[in-house]
Amino acid sequence: MRGAMERTEKMTVLIVGVGLIGGSFAVALRDRALAGEILGVDASAEHGAEALARGLVDRMVALEEGIARADLVVLATPADTLPRLAVQVLDRATDRQVVMDMGSLKAELCAAVAGHVRRSRFVAVHPMWGTEHSGPAAAEHGAFAGRIAVVCERGRSAPDAVRLVERIFAALGAPIVEMEPEAHDRHAAYVSHISHVTSFALALTVLEKEREERRIFDLAGGGFESTVRLAKSAASTWVPILLHNKTNLLDVLGEHIRQLERMRRMIECDDAEGLAEAMRRANEIRRILH
Amino acid sequence: MRGAMERTEKMTVLIVGVGLIGGSFAVALRDRALAGEILGVDASAEHGAEALARGLVDRMVALEEGIARADLVVLATPADTLPRLAVQVLDRATDRQVVMDMGSLKAELCAAVAGHVRRSRFVAVHPMWGTEHSGPAAAEHGAFAGRIAVVCERGRSAPDAVRLVERIFAALGAPIVEMEPEAHDRHAAYVSHISHVTSFALALTVLEKEREERRIFDLAGGGFESTVRLAKSAASTWVPILLHNKTNLLDVLGEHIRQLERMRRMIECDDAEGLAEAMRRANEIRRILH
Repeated sequence: MRGAMERTEKMTVLIVGVGLIGGSFAVALRDRALAGEILGVDASAEHGAEALARGLVDRMVALEEGIARADLVVLATPADTLPRLAVQVLDRATDRQVVMDMGSLKAELCAAVAGHVRRSRFVAVHPMWGTEHSGPAAAEHGAFAGRIAVVCERGRSAPDAVRLVERIFAALGAPIVEMEPEAHDRHAAYVSHISHVTSFALALTVLEKEREERRIFDLAGGGFESTVRLAKSAASTWVPILLHNKTNLLDVLGEHIRQLERMRRMIECDDAEGLAEAMRRANEIRRILH
Repeated sequence: MRGAMERTEKMTVLIVGVGLIGGSFAVALRDRALAGEILGVDASAEHGAEALARGLVDRMVALEEGIARADLVVLATPADTLPRLAVQVLDRATDRQVVMDMGSLKAELCAAVAGHVRRSRFVAVHPMWGTEHSGPAAAEHGAFAGRIAVVCERGRSAPDAVRLVERIFAALGAPIVEMEPEAHDRHAAYVSHISHVTSFALALTVLEKEREERRIFDLAGGGFESTVRLAKSAASTWVPILLHNKTNLLDVLGEHIRQLERMRRMIECDDAEGLAEAMRRANEIRRILH
């Protein structure tokens, strides 16, 4: 068996879900000459037409036709749809094709495909990139570069399938990190999902107050913008992620509320030394963010 | 009485506190040829030497000498030191000099100078700019441009003093907005101070978890970075701000914790519709952040 395409430039790629992530991946493949023809599938006819008009894909097709023609099938639909979609695509895939996803959650997905006869054709990938925008219009050049791409259960994917995925992300400048699905979902709750929850809550806090005070945003500067930016994110993306990562998220959210209440008590008691100590500990985040 | 310098280019400026804000203001004055000589005062000899070495100021002087020589005195020390310092400087100022501050809090400050015989020589200013860094090394070119500068109690400052401040900020590209001191402090709590509290708390949340799980930061991407960036900020700047804006801050912090708890309950109950509705409301922040 020859396995997946060794020369990517002639490869036909099917992108299922031509929104922010799928669209940006299509653009990246094109920019790096990593694909021949790029086909698209989308549940929204409007998004499909827009993806086509923007040149993200060469043709929009039906899922069945796309699977039949593609060397690589990329699943980039909302996180809660992926387990079922991955099974549905693997049902129709051959031993020459590779199927990968780009979703934010891995435990349910990997469990769903675990017993599939074509499990080895699937590679579970989460490139750590995104913006607060969504849809084909949000697709960007240069996405994924310099960001990590997590691969889960690498050992359960065929070597040629892993090689194809590795070659693509190497070309995009995205280092690959291996991680177990459960560890991935727990870590993602801490470094991505909680940031969205706090941004949504902060936006609601200020918007609530704005009803009383019209001029409150005259002052909105850079700090506010950076902490609230994620609150522009789409509910259709984030509701499924939060609910399908519920246990991990409730764990981190509980800890976050405890930390906020600790700071509130220190402010109430004018505990300058306690606050300074907490801030100096928080400053250690410099170790991680450069 | 001729009043404050009408031709700024020959003006001698004293910057009290040559850190991030005072240092960046010195740089901006220099870049726009708005000052002749720039003098500096700093409680830290080390910071003074660094400001001098970086060319932020022409000379470091004692406060008394600086006041005696300056046409414009700029107060850029931590927020809690400003009420006393402003009185101390006004005690020595003449009717030809202008004193302005750049602090994040205005109610206490304006109350402290309210009855001063030289009140009209003082202009209370808060340029809505800052970064998470501090000290003379953090001073930046191009600071303040495109950001609002709030002026409080404009009517209590002499017209020539206001004109000088307006001319400077117009040259820096910073539009001036008038606001009462109490309104300023309330609004600042909503659009600046709370963002810092949530960032500090979020950093503590993740750092707490990191003790158990070493690899948690492998995944840290753009969203995390933007919500946690402010947690690098200096305790020496932020403890005084939080404690001296306690009432407003506890109000907004209480509302923020309520919003987080509301989202936590919706996640616990798998309330997808409630979460989607909350996120769509939060999306309205787009009206404010473009």
